[in-house]
Amino acid sequence: MRITSCACCAGFNLYSSAAAAPADAGGGAPGAPRSGGTVEPALLEDIAIASRICAMEGVFDAFGHLSLRHPGDPRRFLMSRSKAPALTNADDIMEFDLDCIACDQRGRGMFLERFIHGEIYKVRPDVNSVVHSHSPSVVPFSLVRNQMRAMFHNAAFIAQGVPVFDIREKFGATDMLVGGIEKGRELARALADKSVVLMRAHGSVAVGPSLQHAVFRAVYTEVNAKLQLSATLLGGPIAALDEEEGRLADAVNFASASRPWELWKLKAAGAA
Amino acid sequence: MRITSCACCAGFNLYSSAAAAPADAGGGAPGAPRSGGTVEPALLEDIAIASRICAMEGVFDAFGHLSLRHPGDPRRFLMSRSKAPALTNADDIMEFDLDCIACDQRGRGMFLERFIHGEIYKVRPDVNSVVHSHSPSVVPFSLVRNQMRAMFHNAAFIAQGVPVFDIREKFGATDMLVGGIEKGRELARALADKSVVLMRAHGSVAVGPSLQHAVFRAVYTEVNAKLQLSATLLGGPIAALDEEEGRLADAVNFASASRPWELWKLKAAGAA
Amino acid sequence: MRITSCACCAGFNLYSSAAAAPADAGGGAPGAPRSGGTVEPALLEDIAIASRICAMEGVFDAFGHLSLRHPGDPRRFLMSRSKAPALTNADDIMEFDLDCIACDQRGRGMFLERFIHGEIYKVRPDVNSVVHSHSPSVVPFSLVRNQMRAMFHNAAFIAQGVPVFDIREKFGATDMLVGGIEKGRELARALADKSVVLMRAHGSVAVGPSLQHAVFRAVYTEVNAKLQLSATLLGGPIAALDEEEGRLADAVNFASASRPWELWKLKAAGAA
Amino acid sequence: MRITSCACCAGFNLYSSAAAAPADAGGGAPGAPRSGGTVEPALLEDIAIASRICAMEGVFDAFGHLSLRHPGDPRRFLMSRSKAPALTNADDIMEFDLDCIACDQRGRGMFLERFIHGEIYKVRPDVNSVVHSHSPSVVPFSLVRNQMRAMFHNAAFIAQGVPVFDIREKFGATDMLVGGIEKGRELARALADKSVVLMRAHGSVAVGPSLQHAVFRAVYTEVNAKLQLSATLLGGPIAALDEEEGRLADAVNFASASRPWELWKLKAAGAA
Repeated sequence: MRITSCACCAGFNLYSSAAAAPADAGGGAPGAPRSGGTVEPALLEDIAIASRICAMEGVFDAFGHLSLRHPGDPRRFLMSRSKAPALTNADDIMEFDLDCIACDQRGRGMFLERFIHGEIYKVRPDVNSVVHSHSPSVVPFSLVRNQMRAMFHNAAFIAQGVPVFDIREKFGATDMLVGGIEKGRELARALADKSVVLMRAHGSVAVGPSLQHAVFRAVYTEVNAKLQLSATLLGGPIAALDEEEGRLADAVNFASASRPWELWKLKAAGAA
Repeated sequence: MRITSCACCAGFNLYSSAAAAPADAGGGAPGAPRSGGTVEPALLEDIAIASRICAMEGVFDAFGHLSLRHPGDPRRFLMSRSKAPALTNADDIMEFDLDCIACDQRGRGMFLERFIHGEIYKVRPDVNSVVHSHSPSVVPFSLVRNQMRAMFHNAAFIAQGVPVFDIREKFGATDMLVGGIEKGRELARALADKSVVLMRAHGSVAVGPSLQHAVFRAVYTEVNAKLQLSATLLGGPIAALDEEEGRLADAVNFASASRPWELWKLKAAGAA
Repeated sequence: MRITSCACCAGFNLYSSAAAAPADAGGGAPGAPRSGGTVEPALLEDIAIASRICAMEGVFDAFGHLSLRHPGDPRRFLMSRSKAPALTNADDIMEFDLDCIACDQRGRGMFLERFIHGEIYKVRPDVNSVVHSHSPSVVPFSLVRNQMRAMFHNAAFIAQGVPVFDIREKFGATDMLVGGIEKGRELARALADKSVVLMRAHGSVAVGPSLQHAVFRAVYTEVNAKLQLSATLLGGPIAALDEEEGRLADAVNFASASRPWELWKLKAAGAA
Repeated sequence: MRITSCACCAGFNLYSSAAAAPADAGGGAPGAPRSGGTVEPALLEDIAIASRICAMEGVFDAFGHLSLRHPGDPRRFLMSRSKAPALTNADDIMEFDLDCIACDQRGRGMFLERFIHGEIYKVRPDVNSVVHSHSPSVVPFSLVRNQMRAMFHNAAFIAQGVPVFDIREKFGATDMLVGGIEKGRELARALADKSVVLMRAHGSVAVGPSLQHAVFRAVYTEVNAKLQLSATLLGGPIAALDEEEGRLADAVNFASASRPWELWKLKAAGAA
């Protein structure tokens, strides 16, 4: 995997960990995909903490899930078994190939919508983490013509534009879930090169180059939606960030994502 | 405590003022309905937990109540004595016949509106649990012409339509409570074959085939109402779930109601 | 004081306590009003708890205050010294005559707006408790022409109508506070025979025949305001309680005020 | 940790990248500004507590910062190193001159937007404390023409008027941050003699003669914004405080700012 030595990741050191140890002998079932290699326990713990942070910050309720691309193999990703995200622990984290087949299922339940993750990883090499949620201020924007815009610098990534994926355009009446490769592919196409995509009458997906950035974007998409609801109530026009302001401000956010992460991590651990 | 027949207590004590019959091995007082049989303690505990979950999730405040059809006799149901639902314990659970006469009252106060439960069980054999609440985002929908629609897949059961019961249509000016068989019957008629009915200037009722499903629907009716308030603020048209999408998505929800239940149960116990 | 033996107060037994012991020798400063007599410690504790409940339920923030008419002398009332209500303890409770002169000040700070209480007690013999707050959903109704109406049965006391007191009508530009007898008298006149009065660009006052009823009304005025904000957003007409429904429903609330009180008391003590 | 000059870290580390000077008895590194003198530990603790209060009261999230003019030298101010404000401790407090150069940096990260503070202190000798936040109900007012007005007496300081600083008017497309002396000077010019200034698509600044007053104003600017959102929803005209009422009411607030401060301090310490 092509990870540069960019200092802004130093604080996170997910990908700078040289040692992607080979999968151990016990590996998966016959016919299952090979593991991308052993992952450091601290990283598995971070994935679980990220789930609990999203629950704590109101991005997840009993539903929602996130994933991280495998640090040792870009064709694998790590994701919790099907479980309320507030309850996720490091030992719930499973490994999947990009077709969302578990490397070592061992009877564990899997999220029906893991194809959201796999299909985005296939077409977005810049993305190393995906968060799917139904956060309550965001869902309404998936239902109306009024588009989400960037209300302040912390949500600058929204100034790129936030497309809406309407599953019925391609698939007609469905159960609304992205429950297979084909639906995941269409969702990834709707996302295109953006950071967030809304899903009509369902929720949204935020992506980022790291777990911390994807969580940051999921949280601030919800915050931005709240701000836009209030601004709409006050009456327009709304002097949102323009595209150039968004681009410039997002570079700063990119560098500051570790500050909320450290705070949230402590709060999730009950220490702040 | 001696309770006089002071008129202002009628709503509170009307039905509990009389028989403080001694408990006896065979069940209730002379003339009281026969019990449907002993219920497992874990089930009584689940009913109490469901009450506390509804309080924790903002569906109940100091008021609101829920019930479960007796697992051993479809002509009986189980429901807490009159008490703030956040405080309900397993030993508060009483048993009633479908006319809402207690099998073994022992002087315990009873919810005045238990007829909501009894009358729905009479005409809806598919329903095994009933939740009545005044959850704050739902009440406004009982007052206006703007109808509740399904904003996302988790609230797919709303796509069937949500009728409004206006007690004054049949009963004129009242104290707004469903305080007897006749009013309960009209409410059940308004509910018809749906999962939720709103009660004008009062609250709502959610029903389900199990305690878990009824609680799920009560919680997500409130969540859906919040989403619809926000979508309304953003300006229509609102691309809600259509009936077919609702039907398909509800089948999935039906299968996943245990995930939030397990989370809520742990949270209510202070363990998550 | 004329307290009947109405059973609905039995649970509260503020006024059924026979023994209003004479004020002890240590009494007030020379020239201060005579005390109405010693008050049971449990009653002082209830006044303090009521303050903490109002803080806990979002009726008070760092400001707001409540009082109880002295059970032994209708020309005296009990009220905390000037202090954040979340921090009130039984030993903060002071006694005042209806002109709001302390019976025994001992250097303690007094709320500037205690005249709200004294002047209402003078003209409303049916009122034994007064709550003054700036609860956040209620203030906006003091500023606009859109009047507060009763959105559901628990707020039935609002169906009588909720007048607005605009201090500038009589007093011109002021610091907005009811800081003397004359302003208190005008506020009491605006309240008239109602249960709640709004104060323009300031807050509101809720009154009741007992501490429990006044707190109930203060809490449910805030709840009702939230409901009406949402109903307004959905678009009218709003099928609020009419006056007759309000009168009938309020009789039931009157009897049920002990249920939330018991819950709130336990919650304020950290036990629920 | 070695930090490269990676562009994406500029916002985070630009000002901290150079001198990690050793602490020495005489104060800062060679060439650094002289300290205004030793500050009492209790005052440093109060600055840290103020940060945690703003986090607790929803004024700060992971971002936001506040400062206090040095009590011993009006040309110096005290401010936390760059850190989530909920986590600030007394030993995080640094000292700066009004050009925002640290007296004793010792490698500590500094808030990029400290120029907000320094430039306001330069031109407002009456101001001894500055709070910069993105509090969620306030940001929307920075984006629309609907102006913030004083909804109640506790927010009387708003009746003076609340200007909006739009950084692009002078600086074109930027990263939205007040990241240097020139931008800080323009912001201070927009604030003029007022207590609060909004920053378009960013946040706001509240100032006061003391830490307690600045925090009071930051909190009640957020409260006032919530009230005005609700009043706007109900429909105008809104009978806000006029300028004279604002002036009179603010004098009372000025005297009572210690009451919420004492409450918040206890709450922040987990004791209320």
